[in-house]
Amino acid sequence: MLAKTFVPRHVLVSRCFSSVNSKTLKVGDVLREARVFTSEDVKGYAEVSHDWNPLHFDQESARKAGFENPLVHGMLVSSMFPHIISSHFPGAVYVSQTLHFRSPVYVGDDILGIVQATALRETKNKYIVKFSTKCIKKHSELLVLDGDATAILPNLEMLQPSHSE
Amino acid sequence: MLAKTFVPRHVLVSRCFSSVNSKTLKVGDVLREARVFTSEDVKGYAEVSHDWNPLHFDQESARKAGFENPLVHGMLVSSMFPHIISSHFPGAVYVSQTLHFRSPVYVGDDILGIVQATALRETKNKYIVKFSTKCIKKHSELLVLDGDATAILPNLEMLQPSHSE
Repeated sequence: MLAKTFVPRHVLVSRCFSSVNSKTLKVGDVLREARVFTSEDVKGYAEVSHDWNPLHFDQESARKAGFENPLVHGMLVSSMFPHIISSHFPGAVYVSQTLHFRSPVYVGDDILGIVQATALRETKNKYIVKFSTKCIKKHSELLVLDGDATAILPNLEMLQPSHSE
Repeated sequence: MLAKTFVPRHVLVSRCFSSVNSKTLKVGDVLREARVFTSEDVKGYAEVSHDWNPLHFDQESARKAGFENPLVHGMLVSSMFPHIISSHFPGAVYVSQTLHFRSPVYVGDDILGIVQATALRETKNKYIVKFSTKCIKKHSELLVLDGDATAILPNLEMLQPSHSE
C-alpha cells in the first residue's frame, strides 16, 4: 500500500531547519502522553470490544497466568498511539502498527506513551510518516509495549493538545 | 520474550491426529467471528481510548482524507483478534500483533474476523501459538485488515463461544 522509500534523515533535517521555531513535525520529534487506566476504562473497553477475557477481571485467572493482578487489555494500552498521533494531527489516517507486549499493565499504573517520528515522505500533498511507538511505566521506566506505526498526515503542522505532556 | 522456534507443522499434525475429533487446537485451524460496528461502538471506543480524531465522526474530514464516510477506528476493528482468541481460550495472554490497515471500515459494514493457527510450541505446560489474523468485508471479501498475532494459551482445548460462526 505504501512505497518503501522515505526521505533520508539528513534531507529532512536540512529542509526543516528553515522553520526550526515552528511547530512543523520533523524526524526525531517526540510526542508524549500520560495516562492512568482505571477499572472503569477496562470495563468500558471490554464492553466495546466484547473482550471479556477473565485475565482482565479475575484475580485467580491473572495469577494462574503469572501476573500479580488482572491486566489492562494490551489493545487498550495500544490505543494511546493513534490517539497521540491524531490529537497532534487531526485527520491522520493509520496505515500500520506493530505491537510487542513486553510487561503487564495494571489498573492504576502511570503509563507514558512516547511516539517519535523516524521517517517522513511527502506524496500528493500528504505526508507518510513512520513513528517508533512505546509505552513505559512512568516512574520505573519499565518498557511495557513497543512497536512501529505508519500514518498518513494531512499536513505537518502539530497541534498542541491540552492533555499532552 | 519468546523463543523463535516453533513445532514444525508435520510434527504438530502427527501429534494431533490421535485426537482429530476433539476440539484441540492444531496448526491450520481457523476461528471466525462476524461483527457489524455501529455508531455507538465508534463513540464508545472514542470515549475509552480518548481518540476523537474527526476522521471517525465528521463527514467532511473523512472526504478530505479520501473516504466515503467517517471510519470505524482501525484499532477497534483490530480488537476482534484478541477477542476471537480469548473467547476460544480464556486466559490467553497476548504477546504481539502486527496490523496493516488495507481498506476503510464504515459503520454498518459486515466484517468477518478470521484467525488461523500457523505455528505452535509447548513450553512449561503452556502453549505459544502464532496466528495469521485478517478481517474481510463479508459480502465482497475485500481485505480490510491483516497481520499476525502471537499468544500464550493456558491449554489447547477450544471453547465454542456462542457468538462464533
